[in-house]
Amino acid sequence: MSSNSFGTLLRVTTFGESHGPALGAVLDGVPAGLELTEQAIQRDLERRRPGTSPLHSPRQEPDRVRIVAGLFDHRTTGAPVALLIDNCDSRPDDYEALKDTYRPGHADFSWEKKYGRRDHRGGGRASGRETVARVAAGAIARVWLAAQKIDVIGAVGELGGIKADLTAGDWHSCADDELRCPDAAASQRMREAIVDAQTAGDSVGGVVELRASGVPPGLGEPVFDKLDARLAAAMLSIGAVKGVEIGDGFALARVRGSESNDPLEPQGRFASNHAGGILGGVSSGQEVILRLAIKPTPSISKAQQTVDRSGTTRQLCLGGRHDPCLVPRVVAVAEAMACLVLADMLLLQQIRER
Amino acid sequence: MSSNSFGTLLRVTTFGESHGPALGAVLDGVPAGLELTEQAIQRDLERRRPGTSPLHSPRQEPDRVRIVAGLFDHRTTGAPVALLIDNCDSRPDDYEALKDTYRPGHADFSWEKKYGRRDHRGGGRASGRETVARVAAGAIARVWLAAQKIDVIGAVGELGGIKADLTAGDWHSCADDELRCPDAAASQRMREAIVDAQTAGDSVGGVVELRASGVPPGLGEPVFDKLDARLAAAMLSIGAVKGVEIGDGFALARVRGSESNDPLEPQGRFASNHAGGILGGVSSGQEVILRLAIKPTPSISKAQQTVDRSGTTRQLCLGGRHDPCLVPRVVAVAEAMACLVLADMLLLQQIRER
Amino acid sequence: MSSNSFGTLLRVTTFGESHGPALGAVLDGVPAGLELTEQAIQRDLERRRPGTSPLHSPRQEPDRVRIVAGLFDHRTTGAPVALLIDNCDSRPDDYEALKDTYRPGHADFSWEKKYGRRDHRGGGRASGRETVARVAAGAIARVWLAAQKIDVIGAVGELGGIKADLTAGDWHSCADDELRCPDAAASQRMREAIVDAQTAGDSVGGVVELRASGVPPGLGEPVFDKLDARLAAAMLSIGAVKGVEIGDGFALARVRGSESNDPLEPQGRFASNHAGGILGGVSSGQEVILRLAIKPTPSISKAQQTVDRSGTTRQLCLGGRHDPCLVPRVVAVAEAMACLVLADMLLLQQIRER
Amino acid sequence: MSSNSFGTLLRVTTFGESHGPALGAVLDGVPAGLELTEQAIQRDLERRRPGTSPLHSPRQEPDRVRIVAGLFDHRTTGAPVALLIDNCDSRPDDYEALKDTYRPGHADFSWEKKYGRRDHRGGGRASGRETVARVAAGAIARVWLAAQKIDVIGAVGELGGIKADLTAGDWHSCADDELRCPDAAASQRMREAIVDAQTAGDSVGGVVELRASGVPPGLGEPVFDKLDARLAAAMLSIGAVKGVEIGDGFALARVRGSESNDPLEPQGRFASNHAGGILGGVSSGQEVILRLAIKPTPSISKAQQTVDRSGTTRQLCLGGRHDPCLVPRVVAVAEAMACLVLADMLLLQQIRER
Repeated sequence: MSSNSFGTLLRVTTFGESHGPALGAVLDGVPAGLELTEQAIQRDLERRRPGTSPLHSPRQEPDRVRIVAGLFDHRTTGAPVALLIDNCDSRPDDYEALKDTYRPGHADFSWEKKYGRRDHRGGGRASGRETVARVAAGAIARVWLAAQKIDVIGAVGELGGIKADLTAGDWHSCADDELRCPDAAASQRMREAIVDAQTAGDSVGGVVELRASGVPPGLGEPVFDKLDARLAAAMLSIGAVKGVEIGDGFALARVRGSESNDPLEPQGRFASNHAGGILGGVSSGQEVILRLAIKPTPSISKAQQTVDRSGTTRQLCLGGRHDPCLVPRVVAVAEAMACLVLADMLLLQQIRER
Repeated sequence: MSSNSFGTLLRVTTFGESHGPALGAVLDGVPAGLELTEQAIQRDLERRRPGTSPLHSPRQEPDRVRIVAGLFDHRTTGAPVALLIDNCDSRPDDYEALKDTYRPGHADFSWEKKYGRRDHRGGGRASGRETVARVAAGAIARVWLAAQKIDVIGAVGELGGIKADLTAGDWHSCADDELRCPDAAASQRMREAIVDAQTAGDSVGGVVELRASGVPPGLGEPVFDKLDARLAAAMLSIGAVKGVEIGDGFALARVRGSESNDPLEPQGRFASNHAGGILGGVSSGQEVILRLAIKPTPSISKAQQTVDRSGTTRQLCLGGRHDPCLVPRVVAVAEAMACLVLADMLLLQQIRER
Repeated sequence: MSSNSFGTLLRVTTFGESHGPALGAVLDGVPAGLELTEQAIQRDLERRRPGTSPLHSPRQEPDRVRIVAGLFDHRTTGAPVALLIDNCDSRPDDYEALKDTYRPGHADFSWEKKYGRRDHRGGGRASGRETVARVAAGAIARVWLAAQKIDVIGAVGELGGIKADLTAGDWHSCADDELRCPDAAASQRMREAIVDAQTAGDSVGGVVELRASGVPPGLGEPVFDKLDARLAAAMLSIGAVKGVEIGDGFALARVRGSESNDPLEPQGRFASNHAGGILGGVSSGQEVILRLAIKPTPSISKAQQTVDRSGTTRQLCLGGRHDPCLVPRVVAVAEAMACLVLADMLLLQQIRER
Repeated sequence: MSSNSFGTLLRVTTFGESHGPALGAVLDGVPAGLELTEQAIQRDLERRRPGTSPLHSPRQEPDRVRIVAGLFDHRTTGAPVALLIDNCDSRPDDYEALKDTYRPGHADFSWEKKYGRRDHRGGGRASGRETVARVAAGAIARVWLAAQKIDVIGAVGELGGIKADLTAGDWHSCADDELRCPDAAASQRMREAIVDAQTAGDSVGGVVELRASGVPPGLGEPVFDKLDARLAAAMLSIGAVKGVEIGDGFALARVRGSESNDPLEPQGRFASNHAGGILGGVSSGQEVILRLAIKPTPSISKAQQTVDRSGTTRQLCLGGRHDPCLVPRVVAVAEAMACLVLADMLLLQQIRER
């Protein structure tokens, strides 16, 4: 039940609902002495903020973060850092019609079975809006990782069936772009795929790739808290994610050992990186690489079959505000979760490296 | 560092090395009053035991389990259940030559960087042998789940590039088969693929599919301990697993929302199960479905390039005993981990359902 | 480092500093469907609020709580409940002179050694003000416990060397009194002891007794999370508490087994309650009784010897606002912590009682 | 339910019953590279072993420990260390008569209410015999602490109402004595008190004092995992302990602030140590001092009133083997728990001190 917390030494606890007064996070275990500003957090929030593109949900949220605890003289003190983000454009009444009807592909049915009740205002805490608090907390982890020369960056590798060439451009350069895709040609076609789906009252999904560079060897705790196990849990805790793979992932199931093993070279180098930088659950010093499968937004305006609480079959046409494609906005969330995992694992490893 | 424990209310702690005196598990949180025998555990152990087929490692281990704590009058008491499995056919000397050389694809390099030292006897605790303790503990979870009418079963869906038709036969009937594959024709070709690889001094990987039926709606703890997040962590904590997907997984990234949403029907039914039985991280009452990507065994006898501790390049030809393909033996391990997750989540949910 | 969280299934996370913008708590694991109002929390906050008596610190804090997450239609949803309390009368400048000097009896020296820095504004998070968040969270636990017919109440049993007859009056009737002491005669003398100490620029301590009635047998988790172990941790996590005893406590060290054993009687009754309602770490169904030793407020205006950061000896005369005696205000904090422990243990036990 | 584990980074899990086949512990998080022998553990086990004095239970247990996992070349590897101690002199039949009767002062009634059943063979896991596993695990923590120049030692400060002068002799010199009391004169009178009680078919309790020297400042995690909170939980998790106090403890409730504050002196020194080496929950660098109240052994041969499972009143005269006084044997257990806490807190603090 303490399921709104994540991490061991660096531990985030999040709270807040899509249409409640505010969302927030408490980040415990931030090393003392870290210089921290609201601006550094704001930049990451901006990258998942809705309403910044016609391809996003039109909900207008400034997502302005306030640090209400944990700082003194602009530096962390070792006390938990508490972050608050007010909801400004909530419209709970939009959801009145959904009070008794379960939206397909959403948490409506399963969460109501779980808790015996349900916050139908945009899904309450099951909403993707919950991730704003993760991004804010992850931004702090990113600041600390940056001081350790670790960089985490994601990109959209596939969207609506269109694959990008992820080597076509610099990932950081497109980090604030609408589609977070370094392949300009693919990006244009992805945009069209979203518009097509939107026009049809439908939605599309895709694949996000994450890369963490500068990760020293030794991160990850055998045997159950392997780095890949923690990353996988982090990624699948994000609403629309339905799969995760490390390095070559599922493709490794189809090659031979002589092809999948990465030969070691002098000076801690490797001749290839099929393993995605993780061996035996512990980082090898190579780039850590993972990919997430993101399902299409379940909210679509096209008519769908469902049932209501009484068990009566219903035809559902969703109005309200939603993204025709969540994939680009998931990038910032996935990065945040990866930052939280890596910072936690690095703190754990520091005990050993005194 | 308490990374050798897994679970919240039902929590397993494992210990032991590949070539140490014994392996074991302590399972805390087993409900009192459960009837339990060593035989029930033995059956699952048998399913991952080496040396039972020419396709496996020839290491001869009886894998005989002893329950040394937690039982009284053949029933659990609420005390932790402790399990011991002696190593009988360990040959630490086989690994003397590997003392200073890192095997590609193994944990040798990364674990040595982590701990500053390394148990080179078959990888010590990084060995797949560690999973024997998980299977033993998972068997207890399985006994309890069975009493709740929950069944967990896995099968080999793909091996060495050969895909099986998983609807071709009954999964339980092939649960003790050499290849755990219900598709007899595919199974025959998989066998050939293993022998081919073995002959070439190489190895192959594959895909395991797991299905849990009888799972009630409501399991999984939002937001960070979602059922899929816990399952993903459980699966990626298994050595050779490099990816996991829930339901249609990565394929969902390529369809539209109107195709991926599972329409609800009266009486808690759904018209399809693309979601793999999990919505918003909580079980929906449908069958829970997941798939794991398993890389080829990294131990191959073919010559490989690597380095030793001094950084000198080495040519490595591995002798020793190893499986040309781990995939069928992973099935029992994956089932055990799924049982542990589901039992834990069911206990957590029971608090709410009084 | 996740040390700002407490509890297993019901888990509170607190944040905030004495002279920061706000304090707060996130309470995770509150059962869904509990009716909850800010008023119910406010009543408990009022009982630890400063500035309500000439015997307290004159700091004027309204301690107004806002519930910013976790409620829908005035009921809990299963989501974490987040609480915020703004600091209104903080005066960080009062502490400028203490920037480089360690106050005896305070956390100044030890926390600076721990974190390498220190929030000198009233001790930052080491301040007793931190407990306002615990009282707010504990009030929610209390509401839930009340629904289970469990009542937790404390009283001042000793103050400034004056012992009270705790059977002299009703504890609930004095719950809002200045001294929380049901013995009117003793209460009057305690008041004089405080005024005497205050006049001398000094402070006094005392003993708080807690009683929980309606506790069913079976609460407490063997062997390390025994009910008494959890209660003891809860109590000693409160700043000024230096000892805790269960039932007859230290007096049991001086009697014989035939005197300390509580004879059992029919219908789950006992002939006495020397054990304080806990046997083998598990509640017996009797009243749970514990006592806390509270040291005198370390902040005194009398001159004291200390050192500064450079190691130079200093004479220190503390100005600022502080309580000449914390004991009555600790009652609400101790009750809150006991409520959090009991609710957590009750949730854990509910799994077994389906 | 994971209540058989204790600690954060250094985490012990214990298992086993008084009259089961074996007891044991898994200690996770032991730093890699620590030289460790069974002999080092054996020495501590010897200090709590029964049957070594006419003042103890006559149960003959060699308490021989085996390390079955976690070592390679006599050093720890970072893997969990698993310890096994076989029960050799168990006599479950001695307890047949107690099958349906609740022993006063024991866990019989409360544990049966908790679990719905009970291991009546000497209390099963509620027996003091459970602590043998703690002592074994604590011995490993002690070895590591010794390498950091931290020493933990306990002594009997009071027994059967007789107070010792704890400055009368060296604590280490009496660490293996029958009564663990450095005051020879008091020790002699304590012995008589035990014999007197034993003759009367009764038992006595007492007070144990613990001292940890060499503890650096900075140990303890604010706010809920304060060093004193963790130590208190550790101590009250030991069966017969009914109270704990830090430094002057309850006596501090009766003095003024000017008397209880320890003045600071140059070079991290203090003029006194009323606080017991802990300020604001964090070690100050002074000696850490605590005291435990231990109730008389509840097993007495004198006739007692109780009830059986049917609720019928019974007269109970306990036979079997038991200690007329547990206090001296508790010393080793309390030391072990303190070692586990201190080592855990030191590991946590090392993250900050890189």
